[in-house]
Amino acid sequence: MHIDINCDMGESFGPWTMGDDERVMPSITSANVACGAHAGDPGVMRRTVRAAKRHGVAIGAHPGFADLQGFGRREIQADPAEVEDLLIAQIGALAAIARAEGASLRHVKAHGALYNMAVRDRRLAGAIAGAIKAFDPSLIMLGLPNSSLIEAGAAEGLRVAAEGFADRSYERDGSLTPRSRAGAVIHDPALVVDRAVRMIRDGIVLAADGAEVPLKVDTICVHGDTPGAADLTRRIRAGLQAAGIHVRAL
Amino acid sequence: MHIDINCDMGESFGPWTMGDDERVMPSITSANVACGAHAGDPGVMRRTVRAAKRHGVAIGAHPGFADLQGFGRREIQADPAEVEDLLIAQIGALAAIARAEGASLRHVKAHGALYNMAVRDRRLAGAIAGAIKAFDPSLIMLGLPNSSLIEAGAAEGLRVAAEGFADRSYERDGSLTPRSRAGAVIHDPALVVDRAVRMIRDGIVLAADGAEVPLKVDTICVHGDTPGAADLTRRIRAGLQAAGIHVRAL
Amino acid sequence: MHIDINCDMGESFGPWTMGDDERVMPSITSANVACGAHAGDPGVMRRTVRAAKRHGVAIGAHPGFADLQGFGRREIQADPAEVEDLLIAQIGALAAIARAEGASLRHVKAHGALYNMAVRDRRLAGAIAGAIKAFDPSLIMLGLPNSSLIEAGAAEGLRVAAEGFADRSYERDGSLTPRSRAGAVIHDPALVVDRAVRMIRDGIVLAADGAEVPLKVDTICVHGDTPGAADLTRRIRAGLQAAGIHVRAL
Amino acid sequence: MHIDINCDMGESFGPWTMGDDERVMPSITSANVACGAHAGDPGVMRRTVRAAKRHGVAIGAHPGFADLQGFGRREIQADPAEVEDLLIAQIGALAAIARAEGASLRHVKAHGALYNMAVRDRRLAGAIAGAIKAFDPSLIMLGLPNSSLIEAGAAEGLRVAAEGFADRSYERDGSLTPRSRAGAVIHDPALVVDRAVRMIRDGIVLAADGAEVPLKVDTICVHGDTPGAADLTRRIRAGLQAAGIHVRAL
Repeated sequence: MHIDINCDMGESFGPWTMGDDERVMPSITSANVACGAHAGDPGVMRRTVRAAKRHGVAIGAHPGFADLQGFGRREIQADPAEVEDLLIAQIGALAAIARAEGASLRHVKAHGALYNMAVRDRRLAGAIAGAIKAFDPSLIMLGLPNSSLIEAGAAEGLRVAAEGFADRSYERDGSLTPRSRAGAVIHDPALVVDRAVRMIRDGIVLAADGAEVPLKVDTICVHGDTPGAADLTRRIRAGLQAAGIHVRAL
Repeated sequence: MHIDINCDMGESFGPWTMGDDERVMPSITSANVACGAHAGDPGVMRRTVRAAKRHGVAIGAHPGFADLQGFGRREIQADPAEVEDLLIAQIGALAAIARAEGASLRHVKAHGALYNMAVRDRRLAGAIAGAIKAFDPSLIMLGLPNSSLIEAGAAEGLRVAAEGFADRSYERDGSLTPRSRAGAVIHDPALVVDRAVRMIRDGIVLAADGAEVPLKVDTICVHGDTPGAADLTRRIRAGLQAAGIHVRAL
Repeated sequence: MHIDINCDMGESFGPWTMGDDERVMPSITSANVACGAHAGDPGVMRRTVRAAKRHGVAIGAHPGFADLQGFGRREIQADPAEVEDLLIAQIGALAAIARAEGASLRHVKAHGALYNMAVRDRRLAGAIAGAIKAFDPSLIMLGLPNSSLIEAGAAEGLRVAAEGFADRSYERDGSLTPRSRAGAVIHDPALVVDRAVRMIRDGIVLAADGAEVPLKVDTICVHGDTPGAADLTRRIRAGLQAAGIHVRAL
Repeated sequence: MHIDINCDMGESFGPWTMGDDERVMPSITSANVACGAHAGDPGVMRRTVRAAKRHGVAIGAHPGFADLQGFGRREIQADPAEVEDLLIAQIGALAAIARAEGASLRHVKAHGALYNMAVRDRRLAGAIAGAIKAFDPSLIMLGLPNSSLIEAGAAEGLRVAAEGFADRSYERDGSLTPRSRAGAVIHDPALVVDRAVRMIRDGIVLAADGAEVPLKVDTICVHGDTPGAADLTRRIRAGLQAAGIHVRAL
């Protein structure tokens, strides 16, 4: 039994720092690196790629809307052709930076509002999958299980990876509890670790109403920009390993 | 005898159009495509690459400072490491767009203030050459003859190409007459054509003071954003061909 | 009988030009000046204000989403508080530029997607009205007749002005025919002039299906960025004057 | 005897936080608020103005180059007319936000590279002074003592205020020791406090070589973005008050 742990990285910009990449890096196996549109700049991208390489962490592109102020979290009206071009440019920029460091990309995960929109909009999901395929069809596409994202990636013949969130509450239908609802984010580290283990080992997540929901995931997403992120991530990794689950990149 | 004609292309952005790319494209052999930092956006980049491919024009990256408002023409304080990362990201973005169109890059030419600064600053020129080498050492680096740019490219082992300007006045020392001086830009098409022919056929340019200055160039740069650019470019190409000079990409 | 003619102005940015402001200015009475977020930069703003002043044209702020590439025409998720701050900053920037030219603002008209979203979202409309009121409650707020915009302006105690579009087709319910439908934009100048006159003189617009729709407007909006805009605007103004309608600012 | 303490504030942007404004605010008397070009966004500007008002801190505009990634610290080629327009727009934006909070501006201090360039370039300094005068001639202009900035402000008839840096080393000629030199920044809080007191009480600063340099300042600048900034600022204020110096806004 094995699992990947992915985390958004390289979300600093210019003079501003976000996250605690150096301390999170040792606990993860895949880094989703911002590509300069919603966060990151060429220098940040390079330092992040370098750190990932040093820690033996797989490098992926984390493209998003070109919206620094909104951090790519605001939904922006976009047609699929526009999204495809936007993503190809971002993936290409990061791949070039990686090449300069003697590294290459393993996966792509869309960021923020773009991810959320594509989860429910099959055409946007198709644009994301199309961008990946156009750039390098061997890249793995990450997405929410059973969503348009996964469906579009598979339809394009890409290798896809479904991700689960150990620190988020789920609904009975397998969707995430909206962040606006109380209890949407789980803060108790022991509980988060326990949920991660059940997700991987048993393929089950407990829904907010107590129901056991089947959930098959290939990677666990952890959040690097919350206080205590490094510690929580270390505990999740240790917990998974203690449960006999091998933690390794996709 | 042969020569390349290069022109900056894809300098539109969002709702704004610049240049007359469609009408200039048939007369040139190399397109320097803006990479989204000083001009261009992913959609413009893709349309420009597509047009270049349709016209059989070689595609090059034209990276510049990330300064839309100043169009990359303002000098910005930058250290070499920053410039290298900035260029790798831009070249990578354009290369990815090109790949999505089944095309690939042939050359790189720095834009505007970055080009001008690197002409006289060997360290910046080295950063540009370093970026090209890190991304793809088979790309050709364009620059001003006898400048730091050409020197740095050669020092990195890159294939370099020196460019001449048929519509610009030169000084006795081979430098360009500053734009602030009267007569710096030559507007008479017949004269421009004549100067282009002499430059290629005889390796000579007439300086502002009448002196014959030796100048060895591999490519002629034409400007696509001036009124009448398409016509002037067509006349230059026709004039070169009439003089028995084969016009072809680098 | 009198009417105002308003037009979006100052939509150039950095090296890029949009519209033909100098030729349109003589025919209009109110200029909606872009404020640097979706178009315009401080230099463009200043030149536009100066031109408006020279032509005796009333100056208004035309704030929009901070989205240059999308020209403020993409809908962006935004909460009312964010929109209020965004607009205050933009109106303030333009008012300051106007003050430096010895001029002051007369009106505010939201731009593009923000306008369209506020037409149907009373909370966003309230944010726009709130921004105007917070900055200067004597400014006139422009909007679509019978929309949330006009309603919100009135609710805040602002003077409001309803605008009509002589070159746009209307539906039986008084809404604009969506641009995606054939015939949404009317190109025949004679017809446009005729519709402008009927709108002002008779308070009526012919809907796409031939129905006479009552429409009470205080200002006619003309578009400055279409080919022939200057001529069409001149004809509209002349046609209104020939029909005995006095053309003057709000 | 009295002195003002000024500090750069509101330098967060979108999702990124900089500085510890809330903890620094109680110890200062003037806040230089970023205006959205090098840092700050409309929401940050509003929150910063609101906090300053709550703490009874005088509000000033802190305009800089439109360079988020470089945080306004990179020198950018700019002609005076451009700088004037850039500053008017920024000051106007902040003044509008302040007005919405029932507050008004007291001073203007240029930021980063713009400040440094204007210290030695009288024409840029004149553009800054011209912008302030054009917007509101009652605003106080801050600058380095004996620099072009102060000279330009005075020449425009503005009220000027010279600022000193308690945590920076000075040269015998009254200039600041360049940051690139060891000892340029003084970290020992007791020493910083002592230097602040001597500067105000005695009009003297100890140069790096031990010489007593006369220095007449109206305000002390403290830095809010360094670790321990809030504590250091509180100690400076307490030290000044203990020395019988009244701390109050300009």
